[in-house]
Amino acid sequence: MFLALDLTGVFAFALNGALTALRVTRIDIVGVVTLAMFTALGGGMVRDILLGAVPPATFVDWRYLAVAALGGLVAFVFGRHLQQLSRPILALDAAGLSLFAVTGALKGLDFGMGVVQATILGAVTAVGGGTLRDVLVREVPAVLSSGLYAVPALLGGLLVAGLVEGGLAVLPAALAGAVACFTLRMVGVRFDLHAPVPRSVLRPRP
Amino acid sequence: MFLALDLTGVFAFALNGALTALRVTRIDIVGVVTLAMFTALGGGMVRDILLGAVPPATFVDWRYLAVAALGGLVAFVFGRHLQQLSRPILALDAAGLSLFAVTGALKGLDFGMGVVQATILGAVTAVGGGTLRDVLVREVPAVLSSGLYAVPALLGGLLVAGLVEGGLAVLPAALAGAVACFTLRMVGVRFDLHAPVPRSVLRPRP
Amino acid sequence: MFLALDLTGVFAFALNGALTALRVTRIDIVGVVTLAMFTALGGGMVRDILLGAVPPATFVDWRYLAVAALGGLVAFVFGRHLQQLSRPILALDAAGLSLFAVTGALKGLDFGMGVVQATILGAVTAVGGGTLRDVLVREVPAVLSSGLYAVPALLGGLLVAGLVEGGLAVLPAALAGAVACFTLRMVGVRFDLHAPVPRSVLRPRP
Repeated sequence: MFLALDLTGVFAFALNGALTALRVTRIDIVGVVTLAMFTALGGGMVRDILLGAVPPATFVDWRYLAVAALGGLVAFVFGRHLQQLSRPILALDAAGLSLFAVTGALKGLDFGMGVVQATILGAVTAVGGGTLRDVLVREVPAVLSSGLYAVPALLGGLLVAGLVEGGLAVLPAALAGAVACFTLRMVGVRFDLHAPVPRSVLRPRP
Repeated sequence: MFLALDLTGVFAFALNGALTALRVTRIDIVGVVTLAMFTALGGGMVRDILLGAVPPATFVDWRYLAVAALGGLVAFVFGRHLQQLSRPILALDAAGLSLFAVTGALKGLDFGMGVVQATILGAVTAVGGGTLRDVLVREVPAVLSSGLYAVPALLGGLLVAGLVEGGLAVLPAALAGAVACFTLRMVGVRFDLHAPVPRSVLRPRP
Repeated sequence: MFLALDLTGVFAFALNGALTALRVTRIDIVGVVTLAMFTALGGGMVRDILLGAVPPATFVDWRYLAVAALGGLVAFVFGRHLQQLSRPILALDAAGLSLFAVTGALKGLDFGMGVVQATILGAVTAVGGGTLRDVLVREVPAVLSSGLYAVPALLGGLLVAGLVEGGLAVLPAALAGAVACFTLRMVGVRFDLHAPVPRSVLRPRP
């Protein structure tokens, strides 16, 4: 059950990464699948490297690799049609975000991190893959420019880590964190919410 | 005392990273704080990952996280005024560079590295955060284009590692390394010094 | 013998990285050498971090550092003349690619990885340094845009890992993998082959 959810998140992120790749010109099937795997597995790898849990779980377990590669291939073949389904894919992406924020925070607690560190690890897991993707295709990472991507992940991670530290069982805490993250993300998308921006942008570097 | 100096460096780098973020358009408070934390803590994290000292110290100790986030928030709120203080901030940045070069090299020695490796680790600590920052906002990293950023860090790291290996006590060696790094950096800024550049730039790729 | 081959690969990749640096304007000697070292040693470092084999071998052994720095210096001094030798350098680069794919896959097997993971580790070793190089100088990584760079590395890694798992001795397996990778890479360059590209590039993001 847990594994199935986790793999769903991986698949969603792989689709997302591959669809981004298809927007970049001069990219071939290897590039599409590579970008899909980076997006889907990158956040978990960075989390595991920071925790010292190497080799990363997503790398050792072949099912993660297979599902991520499958997501990339599906997007490569059906790219044009998937583009039409932007709303379901957005929801799938929000589900992946929620799941990764929660599992990342829980893994942080398992390794003896405090609540703050576990929350950050959750956000790193959720946002890291997309950040690697954006760096590779030379876009400013979404985490820097659209606040309601990182904020739901931080909220979800904080909820689950705080509740578990406060004595709640893991399952309801994880559910609460994931639902909060998913809801805030979808509300943010629906109403185009943003975190506060600076009152004035500074003058660019000379 | 040592911790206070280290946290001062973190604060300086966080300010620096956040001020860079403010120059990038379409960036919100989450992006500013994220970039501040990357800049302030990234170098130390890369150093600790290379040493196998995970989870990284700057991640486990909440004071590092708090000071880095605080630096980002201060820059977000007072960005316009801080822009005027470019000279003191430059000096603070050089102080952070010196401190990180020295502590990075010392940590390398602690983990049994040779002088050359410790020197490089010092430079990685000092320059790594800024390099991550530049990659995230899509600038060519300063370490590639302005030589007198990496050179002082290498000099400071080499001095402290060489002196400690040569038998000097840690405190005077650290002081010598930090002063040398700080001085060379400030002299370089004052007189706009550069490392040698290629005699002719090659023709760009087709 | 093995070490000599490995260092040849490091030297080839360092030349390659430094020649890329020379194409970027406003880059000094520190930048050239830094980019050479990233290109030559980055893939192996990422591999070792993923395997938990830290500190990375290429970092601890001073010969790797020295050969990589030497490659960067040679390119800095003789850049203009090397530019004429693009064909031998391309062959040297393909040799480095083959060697790293094979040694990376073998190291993965040594650490108990399966054939798929070992193959990916080989490709990461072979392609990782060049990807870091491209990110630092703000180009779309070659691994995303030119498929016959990653494909030969995957083929070489798969051959050596599969043959060794199947019971063949290491030396002939490594030879088979390296020759296959080198041949496919050179054939790809000669005939300008590409992996399949998407039938239609999607419309860019709004």
